Amino acid sequence: MTRHDFELRQIGIIRSELKNIHDCPRQEREGAARAWIEVDPEYSAALEGLEPGVEILVLTWLHLADRSMLKVHPRGNPENPMRGVFATRSPHRPNPIGLHRTRVISVALPSRLQVQPLEVIDETPVVDIKSVLSEDG
Amino acid sequence: MTRHDFELRQIGIIRSELKNIHDCPRQEREGAARAWIEVDPEYSAALEGLEPGVEILVLTWLHLADRSMLKVHPRGNPENPMRGVFATRSPHRPNPIGLHRTRVISVALPSRLQVQPLEVIDETPVVDIKSVLSEDG
Repeated sequence: MTRHDFELRQIGIIRSELKNIHDCPRQEREGAARAWIEVDPEYSAALEGLEPGVEILVLTWLHLADRSMLKVHPRGNPENPMRGVFATRSPHRPNPIGLHRTRVISVALPSRLQVQPLEVIDETPVVDIKSVLSEDG
Repeated sequence: MTRHDFELRQIGIIRSELKNIHDCPRQEREGAARAWIEVDPEYSAALEGLEPGVEILVLTWLHLADRSMLKVHPRGNPENPMRGVFATRSPHRPNPIGLHRTRVISVALPSRLQVQPLEVIDETPVVDIKSVLSEDG
């Protein structure tokens, strides 16, 4: 297999009151924090159609993750037996892409979305936003 | 906002009978094609815990996508009004990451997974695999 690298471009940033990893519950729905997604105005046209109430998937780049880890204790609990990171949702993985299902609360022109719930540390880069499909769940 | 680029590493490749975009239904569940995910053996430890029957999310790099498109006709149908790509699941977007929910059918050591359904073109790069959480759906 010939392997390639790809260039991922930051399209926005999370603005959140969660300032470090200790502020974050381990799974999204354990809390209900609000956050802003500040999208670069260069991409504002790509937001058309996102309105309050719409469910979205936010893909982030978990910049604090350890990309060399292949096995973890799930949910960071040493009592959980080690598993491969591809069988978990650990942030530590070769490509630390975070996947967060959330809902748009309000839209501030030209390119800011308020969402809830979103348990992501302040200043985490955003790399994609997608609509939710029925087959996602 | 200071923007950054990130280096995404290919961790595997899709092996599928779908050889071009015309073989692909527009949404995963309209067909039920099987495919193999061939993970680079360097990452085989990261697969531990993935067994037949387990639901997973596969993140791909949609290498044929147009990264400059910000608006599209949803599902490629010109009768659908144009929408921002972040309000759709179009492959065309600034970072063409594909997100596919599927199920492991079989595991071939050291690092191959057969999955169904997966409507992805042969030789599409894979960048991540995640377990499915209850809050995904």
